[in-house]
Amino acid sequence: MDSEVSVLGLGAMGSALAGAFLAAGHRTTVWNRTPEKAEPLTARGATGARTAVEALAASPLTVICVSTYDAVLEVLEPSADALGGRTVVNLTSGPPGDGRQTAVWAGRQGAGYLDGVVMSTPGGIGNPDVLLLYGGPSAVFAAHRPVLGALGDPVHVGEDPGLPSIHDTALLGLMWSTLTGWLHSTAIVGADVGGGVTATAFTDVALRWMKTVGAFMNDCARQVDSGRTPGGDFPLDLHLTTMDILVHASELRGIDPEFPELFRGLVRKAMADGHGGESYARLIGYLRKR
Amino acid sequence: MDSEVSVLGLGAMGSALAGAFLAAGHRTTVWNRTPEKAEPLTARGATGARTAVEALAASPLTVICVSTYDAVLEVLEPSADALGGRTVVNLTSGPPGDGRQTAVWAGRQGAGYLDGVVMSTPGGIGNPDVLLLYGGPSAVFAAHRPVLGALGDPVHVGEDPGLPSIHDTALLGLMWSTLTGWLHSTAIVGADVGGGVTATAFTDVALRWMKTVGAFMNDCARQVDSGRTPGGDFPLDLHLTTMDILVHASELRGIDPEFPELFRGLVRKAMADGHGGESYARLIGYLRKR
Ligand SMILES: NC(=O)c1ccc[n+]([C@@H]2O[C@H](COP(=O)([O-])OP(=O)(O)OC[C@H]3O[C@@H](n4cnc5c(N)ncnc54)[C@H](OP(=O)(O)O)[C@@H]3O)[C@@H](O)[C@H]2O)c1
Ligand SMILES: NC(=O)c1ccc[n+]([C@@H]2O[C@H](COP(=O)([O-])OP(=O)(O)OC[C@H]3O[C@@H](n4cnc5c(N)ncnc54)[C@H](OP(=O)(O)O)[C@@H]3O)[C@@H](O)[C@H]2O)c1
Repeated sequence: MDSEVSVLGLGAMGSALAGAFLAAGHRTTVWNRTPEKAEPLTARGATGARTAVEALAASPLTVICVSTYDAVLEVLEPSADALGGRTVVNLTSGPPGDGRQTAVWAGRQGAGYLDGVVMSTPGGIGNPDVLLLYGGPSAVFAAHRPVLGALGDPVHVGEDPGLPSIHDTALLGLMWSTLTGWLHSTAIVGADVGGGVTATAFTDVALRWMKTVGAFMNDCARQVDSGRTPGGDFPLDLHLTTMDILVHASELRGIDPEFPELFRGLVRKAMADGHGGESYARLIGYLRKR
Repeated sequence: MDSEVSVLGLGAMGSALAGAFLAAGHRTTVWNRTPEKAEPLTARGATGARTAVEALAASPLTVICVSTYDAVLEVLEPSADALGGRTVVNLTSGPPGDGRQTAVWAGRQGAGYLDGVVMSTPGGIGNPDVLLLYGGPSAVFAAHRPVLGALGDPVHVGEDPGLPSIHDTALLGLMWSTLTGWLHSTAIVGADVGGGVTATAFTDVALRWMKTVGAFMNDCARQVDSGRTPGGDFPLDLHLTTMDILVHASELRGIDPEFPELFRGLVRKAMADGHGGESYARLIGYLRKR
């Protein structure tokens, strides 16, 4: 084993991963089905492996990132004998069940296994703010965290190898909700119709505001976990009053109010059940189908 | 003028404002229609004024925070003669037109005037992350910014005194969108049904993720301002594929998918018009009614 890390799969993402390992000064071995894609990386100092088995044998840690989980198995199955005592970190995207199955398979070959997701496009890899989520045994994560740190901010989300995929979906949902709300608000200030405030200026304020929103999320999280949701000085009654203003302001500016109407609908349902004095966290009970 | 700042209106919010001025070491004069509410503040070192006129005369800067704009005029009109050369900062909530009208009225009395909003409940006042937005002449803002800084993070959103109110509505909309998305995602990871991940643990990851979302907002803002929305490595086509996964994951977990369906609907409309290769910022054109 003369490398610290091997990378299997040198598509857009795999190449970015290998490049970040090299940039961090790690001895890196690379392999790709189509060998040409290794060339820019070997030119930067990576060792090119002729086969996946050779790459797996070269390092204690192998990161694989190919199109699908089927492709993962196509690459790893012929190399099964080389897996004992090695760790495989799989950054291929797929559903939670695929991660769990691959973990079981890798365990049978005597390999340590983490399933992971990259919360970025290839251009963000290496940025210390970019999240990479890992699921699997804590000890395996702890052992490889220093090297994985070259890719971005490594977070262990739990022992279940299905969790990174679930988090991926959940975090993208949070992104779209936030971005759609931001677009709606950018339209409210009229940035798209020359209303005097630019989108850039509004966003500067919006990003400062997100600190308060983040503090509010933390408060609500503690309430969800405790099952107690007192409304304090910002109960649902008060949310409704100000939501009415938002719906009205949207209409006034020719903006479709369906987005605010959706969360106002949730607040109204909770109030109809007598929860007007409780907090926003209480609404989680209204997201599930009854 | 023997105080640095006067506060008119000592309800929940006005008392918090006056308390923050005192905590920052500013000589503060206070007045409230019902005099008893001044007592906790005079006990902490504030000077109690017997009338609003007396309070206005005591300081170059007066902050007023009462229930409504009608109440603002009820307090200020009898004191009109004392306003010349003074600055009034009005932190009472109301629609943009009320701020503009009050600015015109104050201008006629020879007073400097800023309209403002407090993006917090009283408990947050004095926290340096809490936003207070001001609209009106830049020079008036610049002159009083040091004292106003005692209340939180002071941001001048423009010369139009209607802008703070519009921003208030827009930022609350962003908050609800984000929080509702966060609740949906918290349900996706199963935090509300004992799914193995707590809401607190998920939120820790979510808040790190918000840095990436913030960077994405900034990119989209520049695109909205330039009117050019190239999709780069994350075009709407790709958003749709992953939104389908979110809708499916919601259904699978018994969560109503109407929230993700809403933004998926916007993406589909944009794609139907041939914009699948463009970025999320392109959706702003689909929020307005045609
Ligand atoms: N790109 C992104 O923005 C992004 C973001 C987050 C997650 N991801 C995930 O990262 C993974 C890789 O994405 P990518 O953008 O790098 O894709 P890509 O550029 O299309 O590359 C696909 C890679 O998979 C390899 N591959 C496919 N089938 C194979 C097989 N049967 N045997 C061996 N190798 C095979 C390809 O090898 P050849 O070169 O020989 O074809 C290539 O190296 C995907 O699961 C994707 O969802 C991507
Ligand atoms: N509380 C919050 O969380 C919050 C957050 C953001 C913005 N705001 C805004 O801040 C403003 C004040 O809110 P608050 O929570 O402090 O309300 P509050 O506790 O109900 O206090 C209302 C204040 O207005 C005074 N007032 C009402 N009518 C008056 C009149 N005609 N003449 C003189 N004074 C009059 C009251 O005086 P008396 O004591 O004599 O009745 C009292 O000082 C409102 O516009 C509110 O929307 C509040």
